[in-house]
Amino acid sequence: MKKSALQKARAAYQPKLPYALKGSVVAVEGNPTQSVADQEEIKHLFPNTYGLPEITFEKNPNPTVGKPINVGVILSGGQAPGGHNVISGLFDGIKKIHRDSKLYGFLMGPGGLVDHNYVELTAPIIDEYRNTGGFDIIGSGRTKLEKVEQFDKGLEILKDLNIKALVIIGGDDSNTNAAVLAEYYKKIGAGVQVIGVPKTIDGDLKNSLIETSFGFDTATKVYSEVIGNIQRDCNSSKKYWHFIKLMGRSASHIALECALQTQPNVCLISEEVEANNQTLDQIVEYIAGVVARRAEDGNNFGTVLVPEGLIEFIPAMKRLIAELNDILAANATQFASLSPAEQREYIIKNLTPENSAAYASLPEGVARQLTLDRDPHGNVQVSLIETEKLLSEMVGRKLAKMKEEGKYKGKFATMHHFFGYEGRCAAPSNFDADYCYALGYNASCLINSGVTGYMSSVRNLVKPAVQWVSGGIPITMMMNMERRNGELKPVIQKALVDLDGKPFKKFAAQRGQWAVETCYIYPGPIQYFGPAEVCDQPTLTLQYEKLDK
Amino acid sequence: MKKSALQKARAAYQPKLPYALKGSVVAVEGNPTQSVADQEEIKHLFPNTYGLPEITFEKNPNPTVGKPINVGVILSGGQAPGGHNVISGLFDGIKKIHRDSKLYGFLMGPGGLVDHNYVELTAPIIDEYRNTGGFDIIGSGRTKLEKVEQFDKGLEILKDLNIKALVIIGGDDSNTNAAVLAEYYKKIGAGVQVIGVPKTIDGDLKNSLIETSFGFDTATKVYSEVIGNIQRDCNSSKKYWHFIKLMGRSASHIALECALQTQPNVCLISEEVEANNQTLDQIVEYIAGVVARRAEDGNNFGTVLVPEGLIEFIPAMKRLIAELNDILAANATQFASLSPAEQREYIIKNLTPENSAAYASLPEGVARQLTLDRDPHGNVQVSLIETEKLLSEMVGRKLAKMKEEGKYKGKFATMHHFFGYEGRCAAPSNFDADYCYALGYNASCLINSGVTGYMSSVRNLVKPAVQWVSGGIPITMMMNMERRNGELKPVIQKALVDLDGKPFKKFAAQRGQWAVETCYIYPGPIQYFGPAEVCDQPTLTLQYEKLDK
Repeated sequence: MKKSALQKARAAYQPKLPYALKGSVVAVEGNPTQSVADQEEIKHLFPNTYGLPEITFEKNPNPTVGKPINVGVILSGGQAPGGHNVISGLFDGIKKIHRDSKLYGFLMGPGGLVDHNYVELTAPIIDEYRNTGGFDIIGSGRTKLEKVEQFDKGLEILKDLNIKALVIIGGDDSNTNAAVLAEYYKKIGAGVQVIGVPKTIDGDLKNSLIETSFGFDTATKVYSEVIGNIQRDCNSSKKYWHFIKLMGRSASHIALECALQTQPNVCLISEEVEANNQTLDQIVEYIAGVVARRAEDGNNFGTVLVPEGLIEFIPAMKRLIAELNDILAANATQFASLSPAEQREYIIKNLTPENSAAYASLPEGVARQLTLDRDPHGNVQVSLIETEKLLSEMVGRKLAKMKEEGKYKGKFATMHHFFGYEGRCAAPSNFDADYCYALGYNASCLINSGVTGYMSSVRNLVKPAVQWVSGGIPITMMMNMERRNGELKPVIQKALVDLDGKPFKKFAAQRGQWAVETCYIYPGPIQYFGPAEVCDQPTLTLQYEKLDK
Repeated sequence: MKKSALQKARAAYQPKLPYALKGSVVAVEGNPTQSVADQEEIKHLFPNTYGLPEITFEKNPNPTVGKPINVGVILSGGQAPGGHNVISGLFDGIKKIHRDSKLYGFLMGPGGLVDHNYVELTAPIIDEYRNTGGFDIIGSGRTKLEKVEQFDKGLEILKDLNIKALVIIGGDDSNTNAAVLAEYYKKIGAGVQVIGVPKTIDGDLKNSLIETSFGFDTATKVYSEVIGNIQRDCNSSKKYWHFIKLMGRSASHIALECALQTQPNVCLISEEVEANNQTLDQIVEYIAGVVARRAEDGNNFGTVLVPEGLIEFIPAMKRLIAELNDILAANATQFASLSPAEQREYIIKNLTPENSAAYASLPEGVARQLTLDRDPHGNVQVSLIETEKLLSEMVGRKLAKMKEEGKYKGKFATMHHFFGYEGRCAAPSNFDADYCYALGYNASCLINSGVTGYMSSVRNLVKPAVQWVSGGIPITMMMNMERRNGELKPVIQKALVDLDGKPFKKFAAQRGQWAVETCYIYPGPIQYFGPAEVCDQPTLTLQYEKLDK
């Protein structure tokens, strides 16, 4: 692997650890816990791992000598900056317990455990990957670990390698599966602990004890960098409206954080759209209103941030899509025999009036895409809709109408962007480099203290790393029952943008001004070597949530 | 303007100057020059500014006291990182000549001169913009300064403001116009010098004395950052082929530099495609071949860099488009009356066999777009074609066919990206911050030495800034005659990628290995504060061209 100059220089960075983790630790148990909801059901499903206490680590005044332990690690799901540091922290942690400890990485995600594909992660390998982005040290994958056969198959290789603990680095689904696996291994007395680590750039895996998932900090900084650059361009040529879609289907934390960082003219928040029962037309009207208002001042340019999942949060669109799925499933053959024009007519005629009107209001291309591209279950694939283009096209039509009515006198030229893959594998910011290393190191302490079904937790994150608090949270504590594919399942509750929370309120209080004036901020790229105020700031989301700012 | 932490910290950066420019300078004249071609025609068109000598600045052992001078500055065309530093260098330079000198900025491009929109750039304004990206200090625009009426109208305001020199910061076209303006003002004895500054992220404004245009360094570093991040993602999940289009219509310098920085599996170079008379089908076959070869090793992922202007460099496509323009222009009414299917049939029937086959081979959407979206002159708008999607779709079809024939056994899933606006307004790298400041400061020295029709030139750029050589090059020296909109015009010769040059040869020598193996480099974001080997490296293009590397 030929390394860039930055990679070489950054390899020397020594991530910071919380005070308690520098040296031998002792686990302090808190009170028994319960799940966030549906306590009876969750308790019933997790008889062996429910109700466990929170754990906090403190310095051990009487250090003991540990025994060698073999540990396995899995990267699950989408990439997030800092995964390699979780692994190097874990490696350093188990080596600190005993130098003969071994770390095995299962390859290409949970599938590697089931299919017995693994590699031993030795010091020279680990050293190649310290402070780097990506999950390429062992690869990642999306195989879901949820069936007993998979658990049993995995146990074979764990036994072969004498692995006593498995660390699963993943998002809410993967950590849910980690809890199920922990429960199962505990039940059958497999002698394998399972520890989760909270990863996702989407920022939707958080709660009172998990302040943020790792990767969110770095990814939003990369997006804010390029959004800032686009805004500066926008404000220099003053001739385009840039519609910028940002990754994040199930929550709008990324869009919100980027809006706080860059102060665009418009940022849509899916959770707000849903709470206010807004229609697509109302959203379009709102954006068109901002465009027209700016045009009055001669400002025919601006930026609009759009969360990837927007369409799926619009109640009217959800109803339309549900009915479309039904109609198309029931009349597949007949429908397929029609010409495109006839198909359109057919749908408009057969939908209920509300949904018919919503369908007819969509640009033809998008409407047609809704009936064409369907997933293997026959469902409309909402994620294929290029929301940023859909919105700009509809805003353009609205403005044309306003122009006819004399309500708008401006020019409306657009550009489109979608940022997602650009940020998932960036080299971790100092924050993520430290946080991830601490999460991994802390996981080794959880292993050493013998627990299972816990998530590695490092808190007090707006303070300097030395003051961070580390420990473990029973995963069952974060769970509730939700319907998935028609079945009630125990899952970790997703954290959506809280409309009563500080970050959203800060945004809501300022967006009126941002819309009319040009208040762009240009954050620039992540810096790894500069002054602390440039290099070491956590996200504004975290600062607003945790500091009295 | 609320500033980001990086912006605040970066404001303090003091750009480096060449040794000769630190203090009073003396202009040393070289031999008379001549244009790169068409000497007689150029000389005839520029009787007052042709054949002037190159100028080099040296330290003046006997400093003299200067007189106050009023200078105007214009930002022309697309944004490029460092424009603000050209202006701050120019400001500091004329203030050094005399503290009562004044700098006026014409607003929103050359149009500001013609329409008399300007602002005086005072020290507090300049200080707000030092080392920042963007052209927002005075805005930019694309009005072409080419008519005598414009020149005369501009002269009115120049006289009103007692401006004795005008600095035009722009690309090849804008500098061509600067030369025409210089000649005109000289001819009529207007008493206004005109100086050009070489700007463009495209990198196509260069020659033996202009080693690189400013902004190319920073922009390609931003693109390489995000390409690197995508490659790391690609190599972690190992399931997508990413087709990445990069800005640069008239040359492929950006794609080539980014390829050298990141080592993708495929990078197309338009100039090579043209030189080898490649067809679209041959390009598709080449990419499909790489995909299939990698699939043999189980690597169903990769990256393909595509220069924005590719389609216009494919000789067969150029012929097809020319004939399409003719056919559509001659039969507009009849054609418009046909249904889409009939239109397609009509075109395939009426094109010459070669073009008909090329047209029929295009994906239907693209083929249809070619006949639908035409510019005000009725011409097909090639730039609207999403080349990255066109290529991936055609590669997919080719692979499907190869699969049927048993020549390919793999998966081919794709993602698409287009990077352009993300890099044009980034905060300038140390290189561009220094280079731009020196170009601007040097322009003030050219003004002080009384010349006109010169381009600010700073050379020896692979050496530390203190060793840079600065001076001026007569713009006419870079000119030749080219046909533009049917007319022969004197223009600055565009620098295309030289297929015999070091950068291309380095790329060509390694691409076979990059295609099969996974040799990705991850450059990471531009750093402004770290070690020199991270922060102060010029582009690889420049290093290969100028160093014996």
